[in-house]
Amino acid sequence: MSAIDYPLPLKALIVQLKRLPGIGPKSAERIAIWLMQRGGEVTGPFAETLAAAGREVVECAVCGFFSTSETGCALCDGTNRDAALLCVVEQPADILPLERSGAFRGHYHSLRGKISPLENVGPGDLRIGELLVRLRQGQFAEVILALGSDVEGEATAHYLAEALGEFDGLRITRLAQGLPAGGGLEHADELTLMRALQGRVGLG
Amino acid sequence: MSAIDYPLPLKALIVQLKRLPGIGPKSAERIAIWLMQRGGEVTGPFAETLAAAGREVVECAVCGFFSTSETGCALCDGTNRDAALLCVVEQPADILPLERSGAFRGHYHSLRGKISPLENVGPGDLRIGELLVRLRQGQFAEVILALGSDVEGEATAHYLAEALGEFDGLRITRLAQGLPAGGGLEHADELTLMRALQGRVGLG
Repeated sequence: MSAIDYPLPLKALIVQLKRLPGIGPKSAERIAIWLMQRGGEVTGPFAETLAAAGREVVECAVCGFFSTSETGCALCDGTNRDAALLCVVEQPADILPLERSGAFRGHYHSLRGKISPLENVGPGDLRIGELLVRLRQGQFAEVILALGSDVEGEATAHYLAEALGEFDGLRITRLAQGLPAGGGLEHADELTLMRALQGRVGLG
Repeated sequence: MSAIDYPLPLKALIVQLKRLPGIGPKSAERIAIWLMQRGGEVTGPFAETLAAAGREVVECAVCGFFSTSETGCALCDGTNRDAALLCVVEQPADILPLERSGAFRGHYHSLRGKISPLENVGPGDLRIGELLVRLRQGQFAEVILALGSDVEGEATAHYLAEALGEFDGLRITRLAQGLPAGGGLEHADELTLMRALQGRVGLG
């Protein structure tokens, strides 16, 4: 309808912002305008921080968590962690929520994804080889599969349970499924209730 | 609870993202992780675009719209625009929505804000001097005050109506207030209904 539009550099910024997760076209435009109204004093340092993070943050070669060094990260280097426990997660972003729960003080291993035939992700694309190496070299007594409860997470858990069969005496567990904390039954779907019933535990 | 956290460059990025309008701590973390998982290939060009926009986009010295040149922008340079109409808006971001409405083909003037004693913004902080210069030099027959209908917008409109009194024969109008398009009466607040009644127009 109108030939008037934002100048090209601003349009390019809106395009970049729209790609971010959870940012729609309206939000992208609002954020871009907010940035333009503040100008170089805000965009300059922001751009530098963004570039620096992209440049400096790498995947820890051991556990797969975000790190500034490829050989060892705050998690892997940490003393007073339980050397017998290894918690396997799908992605590095899953680690901090588990850590913040305070219920786990062992080591972590991010797979960098989950088996998903639809997205062409097979076991060979995941950090499973690295996991086997760690299990052979370490003194782990238990591997906790902290994977999602969706189809891909379940498939990955089953694949891993099989692949880890070679380790005699290694305990393989997975996260409990059931009611989320603070959630009433009226908000739980049927599958969650089924799992909660199947996993019911004795009281007293 | 936990001493483990994201590496510093990632934390710095989360801080920057949290400052953006409409982005809470959770969204900032999710976006930052999304960016880290994509790495330098995505963050590099994004950072360049951001820095370029902040560097290259300036305020048009004439109308106040976003421009890549301080002297004239796509709006001011545009031919086949009505030279008799000037639409005054609070901020450059207000211009494109009006333009997209298709109901206006005159010129624009962004004030770069509105009178707000609470935020220490007085008439001297706005582009009112520039407005007077344009009115003296141009052949405008009507100034449309397209300001917000909040207290500050109203105060700014009243101030401008007075300040523009020196221009004999200049018509000063403001946007109609009433029901938003497609909105039923049940969603309108009392003040909106009062304005809609006061501004009622004859049919047929």
